[in-house]
Amino acid sequence: MADDNVPADVSVLTPAQARALFRRGVRTPTAGWCAGWTQANLVAVPHDLAYDLLLFAQRNPQACPVLDVADPGEVGTPLFDGDLRTDLPAYRVYRDGELVEEVADARSVWRSDLVTFLLGCSFTFEDALLAAGVPVRHVELGRNVPMYRTSLACRPAGALHGPLVVSMRPVPASLVPTAVRVTSRYPAVHGAPVHVGDPAAIGIRDLDAPDYGDAVPVERGEVPVFWACGVTPQAAVRASRPPFAIGHAPGHMAITDARDSTYLVP
Amino acid sequence: MADDNVPADVSVLTPAQARALFRRGVRTPTAGWCAGWTQANLVAVPHDLAYDLLLFAQRNPQACPVLDVADPGEVGTPLFDGDLRTDLPAYRVYRDGELVEEVADARSVWRSDLVTFLLGCSFTFEDALLAAGVPVRHVELGRNVPMYRTSLACRPAGALHGPLVVSMRPVPASLVPTAVRVTSRYPAVHGAPVHVGDPAAIGIRDLDAPDYGDAVPVERGEVPVFWACGVTPQAAVRASRPPFAIGHAPGHMAITDARDSTYLVP
Repeated sequence: MADDNVPADVSVLTPAQARALFRRGVRTPTAGWCAGWTQANLVAVPHDLAYDLLLFAQRNPQACPVLDVADPGEVGTPLFDGDLRTDLPAYRVYRDGELVEEVADARSVWRSDLVTFLLGCSFTFEDALLAAGVPVRHVELGRNVPMYRTSLACRPAGALHGPLVVSMRPVPASLVPTAVRVTSRYPAVHGAPVHVGDPAAIGIRDLDAPDYGDAVPVERGEVPVFWACGVTPQAAVRASRPPFAIGHAPGHMAITDARDSTYLVP
Repeated sequence: MADDNVPADVSVLTPAQARALFRRGVRTPTAGWCAGWTQANLVAVPHDLAYDLLLFAQRNPQACPVLDVADPGEVGTPLFDGDLRTDLPAYRVYRDGELVEEVADARSVWRSDLVTFLLGCSFTFEDALLAAGVPVRHVELGRNVPMYRTSLACRPAGALHGPLVVSMRPVPASLVPTAVRVTSRYPAVHGAPVHVGDPAAIGIRDLDAPDYGDAVPVERGEVPVFWACGVTPQAAVRASRPPFAIGHAPGHMAITDARDSTYLVP
């Protein structure tokens, strides 16, 4: 709904404009939105699981780079001047590890004891890839990025364990070094790839059947390149079955008030 | 004691050799020890304070870059193949925020509910400074690095609040840019300086009276350069007065099994 209010070029929107659209009900993946602004994964858990999640993030920093944490009862953070319960395009609600619902407005399921984590997202470095001449297929096609649960186990923390989730971008073979070099300069938003080529080696049987997001074609001369993905905590929720958790709908990110350049290392 | 077993050139020791010396009672600052190996700050708190400390670290990452966390009851980590209770040169014991004791062996005060954090230490980038031609005065003089509590407040987390602590190295004015550039490539061990020159602006009245470590002379033509310091959690313990905590004696670090290059970004 309300999609008629979405401009043709969403890259020029400010974070506040984008959040207002999402608050009014626009549901869309956010790749390509708000060029130059950092996007973030969201995961909210009850306070008694927060230490385990923060430790899980610390132990798996490439997948779970923590950008900010909202204390129980807080619905905004210095990084996100909006309402964490409404200002993302969509949310997933988990009970006992099962995905029970996907909602555009999480207020009806929100709890006052939730601690909300914002984790870096690889959409943040896509402008830098484009600027370096590396095409980004899912943005070209207006799709969500394809994401896969791998056979690589994260390092567990307390009650949380689960597989590494990765996003995939097809990269022309000659540009793979450029893609590695450019993204390695953004360690807080997943950084360098974790795997290049050979999906089977990390337990991905079929690139055309992603676990989250949309499939994209890998053209002749291109190599599938895999980056650690901030959906990893939701895969841990699914594997570890805590009583309650909320995540963003994969690819439907929190658009923050931080510039991408904040996370660029020299 | 046992100092007669310490070789003249401690830079060539392996981490295991250094830890064995400390376990046998050698008490010394570790600047210049085990060239090429990462050094770390230690802070151990009861499990019920661990979330606040981990969140404090996340919110103050330049001062508190978390390298590893040992679960309650663990006295080693993948990063530190030794005994965290004995294999540092010295420890500080805090009760209700007061420093009550400094010991070479922490086993008599250790508790099974302690969660132990290893945080990056700026000694780690000193080899890179030296390699780039930047002198490191306290290493030249065989002293501990000078450290100061500043007037800059850390971002609080739960029960923990306190000032930023910094280490200081005098740098020839012409080499300040080099020092910034070199150290910014090691974000996990404090990274770039937080302040250059003008100690009074961050509440340091007298460079000759550090709050921790030893004073070193700032020569004509040199500028005092300040880096965030991993003693910051101990300053937070002092300010926030939790019932119990253990830290390393400032400058007397945990020498880990990680190479410095692990924390070098491209």
